[in-house]
Amino acid sequence: MTWFTTPAAGLNTEIQEQAAQHQSILTKPAGSLGQLENIAIQFAAMQSTNTPKLDATYIAVFAADHGVMDENVSAFPQAVTAEMVRNFSRGGAAISVLAKQLNATLDVVDVGTVNELEDLSGVLSMRVASATNNFCTQAAMSEVQCLQALLVGKEIAEKAQQSKADIFIGGEMGIGNTTTSAALASALLQQPVADIVGPGTGLDNKGIQHKIEVIEKALAYHKQANTSPLKILENLGGFEIVALVGAYIRAAQMGLPCIIDGFISSVAALFASRLSAGVEQWFIYSHQSAEPGHRIVLQELNATPLLNIGMRLGEGSAAASVVCLIKNALALHNNMATFEQAGVSDKV
Amino acid sequence: MTWFTTPAAGLNTEIQEQAAQHQSILTKPAGSLGQLENIAIQFAAMQSTNTPKLDATYIAVFAADHGVMDENVSAFPQAVTAEMVRNFSRGGAAISVLAKQLNATLDVVDVGTVNELEDLSGVLSMRVASATNNFCTQAAMSEVQCLQALLVGKEIAEKAQQSKADIFIGGEMGIGNTTTSAALASALLQQPVADIVGPGTGLDNKGIQHKIEVIEKALAYHKQANTSPLKILENLGGFEIVALVGAYIRAAQMGLPCIIDGFISSVAALFASRLSAGVEQWFIYSHQSAEPGHRIVLQELNATPLLNIGMRLGEGSAAASVVCLIKNALALHNNMATFEQAGVSDKV
Repeated sequence: MTWFTTPAAGLNTEIQEQAAQHQSILTKPAGSLGQLENIAIQFAAMQSTNTPKLDATYIAVFAADHGVMDENVSAFPQAVTAEMVRNFSRGGAAISVLAKQLNATLDVVDVGTVNELEDLSGVLSMRVASATNNFCTQAAMSEVQCLQALLVGKEIAEKAQQSKADIFIGGEMGIGNTTTSAALASALLQQPVADIVGPGTGLDNKGIQHKIEVIEKALAYHKQANTSPLKILENLGGFEIVALVGAYIRAAQMGLPCIIDGFISSVAALFASRLSAGVEQWFIYSHQSAEPGHRIVLQELNATPLLNIGMRLGEGSAAASVVCLIKNALALHNNMATFEQAGVSDKV
Repeated sequence: MTWFTTPAAGLNTEIQEQAAQHQSILTKPAGSLGQLENIAIQFAAMQSTNTPKLDATYIAVFAADHGVMDENVSAFPQAVTAEMVRNFSRGGAAISVLAKQLNATLDVVDVGTVNELEDLSGVLSMRVASATNNFCTQAAMSEVQCLQALLVGKEIAEKAQQSKADIFIGGEMGIGNTTTSAALASALLQQPVADIVGPGTGLDNKGIQHKIEVIEKALAYHKQANTSPLKILENLGGFEIVALVGAYIRAAQMGLPCIIDGFISSVAALFASRLSAGVEQWFIYSHQSAEPGHRIVLQELNATPLLNIGMRLGEGSAAASVVCLIKNALALHNNMATFEQAGVSDKV
């Protein structure tokens, strides 16, 4: 058993029951806080305490480039990956603004942009290679590169834990990575490519049709070799996605809750759950994105996301957006009066 | 033209266009922040500035009792209305916890609980009467009482404005008020009662069936008299709901944005929009509740709520829960870099 197939930590089911019981005696109709109740109960079980807290948020945005960009699959040029890393570093991107709003730690991790980057504040260089290979004609990465990218994620999750974070958010940046994610999800779930592929950052219908054809070609090419989740990651993955897989697995092994972002992060979450048992117990799902494949992947994870407001940005932006909702859920759990304390009559 | 039929203030459409243009040059795929973009644009137009802000939140919870409780329409006893007012005052209710979390001002307004309350911290006594009449056998309130309840709302909206609030949240507490709201919505929209009625705080199927019959009886009784939105409010309303109507109208006339809470608040918002033109431009919709009538009322308001997470508590709890999402939306609008500032390439 390698590190990434070791199962996740277990939740504290005794505390989970106590937290559910506590929710039922707070001064509100039973269940009337909806998913906010479930999140508080899950958090209590994850943190093994009846007074769960979310003070410190750690965000890592993994960035890498994709060889499949040779096939012209994105509305944006490949240079944007590195340009956005610089934008993260300078505080101008959505995730930078949200991290500041949350007083969160934000690390940007270069796992393999096409050109090596200059030294940038807040950017960690943990490069596996200069972009993946074009998966239409060869494996996206070697086995060694795949294991290395998983380790990058492991190291970052451990950094989050060492920083005493209460929650881990993984984001991603990589022009072309909705193509990569759709290929990964199609291969793993044996679902038609056309059901999963969407416009990404903004393809038109013709562009979407081309993206479908590119992925179908790649899936046909790797059909024999796609024998396991790990092999699928090697053949079709991206370095930032594999790093996310490693980060989720290690976070769950250490008992660090994770908020899952959008389509790409959810594909990584799904692979993590196939490699290491019980990982998904540590996930809170931030949103249902506009990308069609996301619904399929979330169903597979049995996920009920908090938001469905047409977001499709990535970077961890939706995950960061819901941190404040989770804080509300925990404040309600910890600070509401019970029927008895308040002298309020219960149901007749 | 009385005060409450005077139209709402207009939004600044020039700023609205500028804000939409600004969103399109921020470093993200166009539209990728979904509703967060729309909210920022709406806020800019409401506040007439390219740098909208949401610092100060004002919350009023209107409380009153309902004569229709004689028909046994709730899972909770009528005493709970007053008991919950005391719970609001002591800080133990959901809205109290959320208000503290937001550093918001919270006023609780007694518009007519069945028994007069002792002096309570944070509770304003603006009583119209000791509960409404049972609308199955007579008008819920007189015309004078209805006008008085509207004025209570007006006064509270003006208090919010004077306190320099950036947003107004109206909540409600009143055992039996999902019955009242369903009756109001059915009468106004001419929709079958059975499509609108739900379990409220927790009725079983038999209880729901009984609630439907009670409302159908009331609608038949008032059929001839329900000649206008105002008459419907008199015949079937509740003091806290009519006060909400008055508050929304006055807030919109003064140009104070409102966050609409759940089913009951949305029914009040719908009546407000029928009495005063353009009121709904000042509304942000917090959530789609589990109460079935809510979907119908939101459709009528052409509303796209932010959350759909099974909440059904009222008190303004969902509206207060989304304040932090709106703050995120405004932070993104104000602080993200443009493509030009960040040196990021736009779409190819």
